[in-house]
Amino acid sequence: MSVKDDILKIAGDAKEASLGVARLGSTVKNKALLKMAGELEANSVFLKEANKLDTDAAVKKGLTKAMIDRLTLTDKVISGMANGLKEVAALPDPVGEVTKMWKRPNGLIVGRMRIPIGVIGIIYESRPNVTADAAGLCLKSGNAVILRGGSEAINSNNAIAKILSAACVATGVPERAIQVVPTVDREAVLEMLKLEEHIDLIIPRGGEGLIRFVVENSKIPVIKHYKGVCHVFVDGSADLEMAERIAYNAKVQRPGVCNAMETLLVHKDIANKFLPLISKRYAEAGVELRGCPETVKILKGIKEAKEDDWGAEYLDLILAVKVVDNLDEAISHIAKYGSLHTESIVTKDYANAQRFLKDVNSSTVLVNASTRFSDGFQLGLGAEIGISTTKIHAFGPMGLEELTIQKFIIYGDGQIRE
Amino acid sequence: MSVKDDILKIAGDAKEASLGVARLGSTVKNKALLKMAGELEANSVFLKEANKLDTDAAVKKGLTKAMIDRLTLTDKVISGMANGLKEVAALPDPVGEVTKMWKRPNGLIVGRMRIPIGVIGIIYESRPNVTADAAGLCLKSGNAVILRGGSEAINSNNAIAKILSAACVATGVPERAIQVVPTVDREAVLEMLKLEEHIDLIIPRGGEGLIRFVVENSKIPVIKHYKGVCHVFVDGSADLEMAERIAYNAKVQRPGVCNAMETLLVHKDIANKFLPLISKRYAEAGVELRGCPETVKILKGIKEAKEDDWGAEYLDLILAVKVVDNLDEAISHIAKYGSLHTESIVTKDYANAQRFLKDVNSSTVLVNASTRFSDGFQLGLGAEIGISTTKIHAFGPMGLEELTIQKFIIYGDGQIRE
Repeated sequence: MSVKDDILKIAGDAKEASLGVARLGSTVKNKALLKMAGELEANSVFLKEANKLDTDAAVKKGLTKAMIDRLTLTDKVISGMANGLKEVAALPDPVGEVTKMWKRPNGLIVGRMRIPIGVIGIIYESRPNVTADAAGLCLKSGNAVILRGGSEAINSNNAIAKILSAACVATGVPERAIQVVPTVDREAVLEMLKLEEHIDLIIPRGGEGLIRFVVENSKIPVIKHYKGVCHVFVDGSADLEMAERIAYNAKVQRPGVCNAMETLLVHKDIANKFLPLISKRYAEAGVELRGCPETVKILKGIKEAKEDDWGAEYLDLILAVKVVDNLDEAISHIAKYGSLHTESIVTKDYANAQRFLKDVNSSTVLVNASTRFSDGFQLGLGAEIGISTTKIHAFGPMGLEELTIQKFIIYGDGQIRE
Repeated sequence: MSVKDDILKIAGDAKEASLGVARLGSTVKNKALLKMAGELEANSVFLKEANKLDTDAAVKKGLTKAMIDRLTLTDKVISGMANGLKEVAALPDPVGEVTKMWKRPNGLIVGRMRIPIGVIGIIYESRPNVTADAAGLCLKSGNAVILRGGSEAINSNNAIAKILSAACVATGVPERAIQVVPTVDREAVLEMLKLEEHIDLIIPRGGEGLIRFVVENSKIPVIKHYKGVCHVFVDGSADLEMAERIAYNAKVQRPGVCNAMETLLVHKDIANKFLPLISKRYAEAGVELRGCPETVKILKGIKEAKEDDWGAEYLDLILAVKVVDNLDEAISHIAKYGSLHTESIVTKDYANAQRFLKDVNSSTVLVNASTRFSDGFQLGLGAEIGISTTKIHAFGPMGLEELTIQKFIIYGDGQIRE
């Protein structure tokens, strides 16, 4: 069979399976998730053998140590996957939840009920644990899933999928509810992205290149974020000790992730006092600063920021710093250079806090807290399938609810339209 | 300028305007809507003159009387547009609404706040009143809108847009918040559909051909429905008098719309009794029946349905009729041939009503009521920008809320990630 036929078969099977998965009760789904968790741990030797094929190939191909680390399935990573599935089993089932209900003058009772989206395609890179995480979230929310991991993890992903599918079969979940695309050919992705009659939603996870490739080529709706150019604005009235703590945490605690701060905006009234304080902390952590002319005047010896720095996602210990005249300039800067991901204001001023929350239309907006809280677990969603800066369906961290849509349900007693 | 440059300019202006529109208070938006309503009525002579250019051209081109009727702006149609805008002014403003709020163990207060989507493109056919309706809904929900009507209504749409824009300017709304694409070239649509950096959402309204063209060519997310193949299932336990009333209303009250019933499913236990009753009513209304072999046995002399009839959207006084063995067969038939639009069960059985509501995953599912209620006004949304059978973002009739997304807002007091 050609790649095209392969993918069509997988997608057709997923669509058929999705009808069955949508109707599963919570008990069956939770049983399956716990079985998967148990089987992943019980089969750790098998998983590590399959994984060795991938890591050996990666070494041969000369991938970086960081990439090989991300690819490697250790016992710790395997129990991490298993624990993730157990946690998803413990979460409330969103399917069938009635979120609202109201009565019409003619007596109709109208409600909105959550139902699964249908078939979800996940296109991702390197980390094989995404295979188990995403499969678990899709199953719990009643969706069938097609997983297409990176070619470098193909043996690991196929091995994980084999275990997950067996657990499905053993617990009464349709076998094809969880499928991994078994070929490494990039054509497979292109074929997948054409099947809008079979696949309802594509979620790409990985670098900007992968995501742009998916968006460019998809006929299916895509929920994604390209990058996180997150800002912290230290207002003139900020508690400087708090501002220092938040600005430090947002940049340094884990610089390589999308909710780390990339640009610090500082109100001119406190710049002379605040910038020397925070730059001392940053220097200790090895953070390179790139400042606007005003910042460079205050912090002598740092690099001047170029225009490109304002939109840069460094994912590293580098930070752009700009002194602004007021809240308006901060908000305009964020609107111009931001990525709609996450922004925070540090302030003691009530009106400024409220205005920042209202007028900054990024997917997560905080007052007096680190940007690092923009995360499904941290915000209490219980899980995270990804983060969206797409301005439809979901905006910000996506949990189980974001893998559902709401239909209208209507209870009548014989009503007709006149 | 080329068509491409024209569209890029319109889209760039819309994106810029969208930042301003998003921040407008309800008072300003309502004032603008009322001004628009007043100006449309005050300029009815101007509108009718512009409209005459379109209707004259339509006569020359030999369009059908029905098409010309839809195209014609009478005083009644003009006050209809004006009243629509007044009604939208009276609706609650969804922007800024906080729909949920919860507290995290670390003291963070997390909420979801509705914000506008940004720039919305509406691509539609014939009826020029859509121009005013859609513009009003987009403005009220804080979005900028680009309207692209059919070439046959171009003079009417440009005239309406001129009046709406002037009302914007007079009331402090960004002038480019509402724009009509002034060219009839189809290339304009293609160019529009490429601008995913400027336009956030496309809503096509019109025939299946137009909608498929938009979906095929769009890089921007599209919320749409192709057609409405709606079902009524008369269960074995149904109150036959109620079933007759609902089945008659769903087919006959307005057969040309997407929420009219196209297939009637009848439980075998009551088919012998119910089919002769309803077919008598249908005969009086001139409804042509096309039945399954079982139906043909009972209602002698009617046409036999072909395979194509089960998925047909007649939009006419024609109805496919099938006798089914049980609820399962009805649900499977709907899953196979339905269009995810609207389905209704008529039953006295509690368990069957609940199962139908739960297991039929169309966008609107009713018990003991006519499919004709699947409509934004009827369900209490206050307005309707369209109906979605797309399985993301919105499902079913879309009102003002569906023109928003929800960002996360977070109140902290210095929290950082450990």
